[in-house]
Amino acid sequence: MSFAEAAAAVRPLDGAAMAAARARHDRLTKPPGSLGRLEAVGVHLAGIAGACPPPVPAPAAVAVFAGDHGVVAEGVTAWPSEVTVQMVANFAAGGAAVNVLARAAGARVVVVDVGVAAPLPAPVLAQVWARRIRPGTANLAKGPAMTPAECEAALEVGASVAAELVAGGARALVTGEMGIGNTTAAAALIAAWTGRPAAQVVGPGAGLDDARLAHKIGVVAAALELHGDAIAAGPRAALAALGGLEIAALAGFCVGGAAAGVPVVVDGVIADAALLAAEQLAPGTAARCLAGHRSPEPGASAALAALGMDPLLDLGLRLGEGSGACLALPVIVAAARILGEMATFGEAGVSGADPD
Amino acid sequence: MSFAEAAAAVRPLDGAAMAAARARHDRLTKPPGSLGRLEAVGVHLAGIAGACPPPVPAPAAVAVFAGDHGVVAEGVTAWPSEVTVQMVANFAAGGAAVNVLARAAGARVVVVDVGVAAPLPAPVLAQVWARRIRPGTANLAKGPAMTPAECEAALEVGASVAAELVAGGARALVTGEMGIGNTTAAAALIAAWTGRPAAQVVGPGAGLDDARLAHKIGVVAAALELHGDAIAAGPRAALAALGGLEIAALAGFCVGGAAAGVPVVVDGVIADAALLAAEQLAPGTAARCLAGHRSPEPGASAALAALGMDPLLDLGLRLGEGSGACLALPVIVAAARILGEMATFGEAGVSGADPD
Repeated sequence: MSFAEAAAAVRPLDGAAMAAARARHDRLTKPPGSLGRLEAVGVHLAGIAGACPPPVPAPAAVAVFAGDHGVVAEGVTAWPSEVTVQMVANFAAGGAAVNVLARAAGARVVVVDVGVAAPLPAPVLAQVWARRIRPGTANLAKGPAMTPAECEAALEVGASVAAELVAGGARALVTGEMGIGNTTAAAALIAAWTGRPAAQVVGPGAGLDDARLAHKIGVVAAALELHGDAIAAGPRAALAALGGLEIAALAGFCVGGAAAGVPVVVDGVIADAALLAAEQLAPGTAARCLAGHRSPEPGASAALAALGMDPLLDLGLRLGEGSGACLALPVIVAAARILGEMATFGEAGVSGADPD
Repeated sequence: MSFAEAAAAVRPLDGAAMAAARARHDRLTKPPGSLGRLEAVGVHLAGIAGACPPPVPAPAAVAVFAGDHGVVAEGVTAWPSEVTVQMVANFAAGGAAVNVLARAAGARVVVVDVGVAAPLPAPVLAQVWARRIRPGTANLAKGPAMTPAECEAALEVGASVAAELVAGGARALVTGEMGIGNTTAAAALIAAWTGRPAAQVVGPGAGLDDARLAHKIGVVAAALELHGDAIAAGPRAALAALGGLEIAALAGFCVGGAAAGVPVVVDGVIADAALLAAEQLAPGTAARCLAGHRSPEPGASAALAALGMDPLLDLGLRLGEGSGACLALPVIVAAARILGEMATFGEAGVSGADPD
């Protein structure tokens, strides 16, 4: 399925299934509303699936899109670009945090090279979905990060990976990413699309001291100036100018998952920026996504507020990779199982009426 | 193992194992600290187990202690006492929320009748651990809820259930409870032990309107007056006067789990009150427990603040049963697996040093 086909296939949530889920919650053996957010998630899953009870959203698949960023030349990161390819090897070997957390949640991990700068060693390449569009973006501080065609190709990669994973049996998708420098690109996009100044959305990423954080804010502020015309031209032009290959792929992935009718669990600030793009390119996509975890990056909260999303978990993770979203998977599965497996008052012979 | 033996067997956390876990976290392939609370939980588990990496705390076992409360005669609940026995039957049949959430987390559920008021039907009795001490407590608004001997017997039940579950293979314990009226008893205990007025710790429980909430506050305030001597006499006397059979059993259960060296995951406000008792009776118990979920009952936050505990999840659940703690189990398992399974910088060949 192409990105355009996926974007056209995103439907509104199923209101009838959501109403049925709400009514079922009130018949289950518990005081109404006493399962809190778990009830809201169950209703949401019913709306996504168009069924009550909703199917259990498992197994999940995590797609870790990897790409490098030319803006690293500006000194905006604590880690060198080489770490991207090293971490891709680590993902391929199953040793990174996202691998452990996905295994714990019973989820599959696929690593998609959509734009790593360095060559991948053959043993790593054998474990990776090779969809490299170019070896890293151009430096967004000097010019557009991608051409429109490259950005479009990255959207296509994301949409096709989502479709392939669902065809392969995934019943939920999780956004993952790796790319030294990508919190700079994400912050620039979030600033562009929420109208907030750079200082409100730039954070320390994987670790920056105050002086380098101030420099990073300056780089983002200057990029917003440089690319003002692209930002004004619309979401595709802004995504190409300020984004990253893995960010555009994640946007396509969210749209692809939404089109396939499975819940998409978004992770941290990179995925939040991608979802802002996805929602503009395919309205209705965000309504089919769940925010797994609140990243402490200030841009994450800005993006989530703009999207009207409230993450399930707030455990202070600031790693990315898909780690926070993987931790939320059991909560989402539990919400579906509550609707599918709990007894009603009638079935259990429990006095359901308040005696007053 | 008796309660007294368990209380004597509670040891401090293992500082060497915790230091080893902190050091290992800094060698794993991620920026230091980037897994947030997950790192702190891993360190905690290492301290509980006395090993780094800590053993994976699975499978877990949930003990749902059920008991009735004479104070229901005061009109402090939205549901009649009959619901306790009906819910025990629902637990036995596997249809309640805690059954679903435990199954989703791969945990066993045992239901312990420590003081249900009504007879259990034979098919239910066959599924329940029958440890009934008396059919519900006396009305704490008129006199002591339990005799000292009954309270002691309930502590013994809890400690022995913990020991049996660990002997049966449980590697983590989860506190569960059922008892119409038990938020009143829990609030009274929390007020007694934190020094807060009734109005600050009494909440709506499973659902009360404002007028009945005000009445419930008045009942608790009067009980604190009535039992002032017992409160002054020490934690055992206060627990007998104001507590519940299932609350005392939960206190014994926390001590039993702490003595057995497994993490104990505490659920909502009832378990928080029980843990306040346990910590006074066997200091060091709370350090071996984790708070799974923040109950919206005001008494829960008061108790947790007194214990210095910060729950992992905050999803608005106000059902009890062990439901919130079950939802936290995957996070706790994940924290252990991170320490056990993630690659180090050296193993993965990732550039670990900040380039600055």
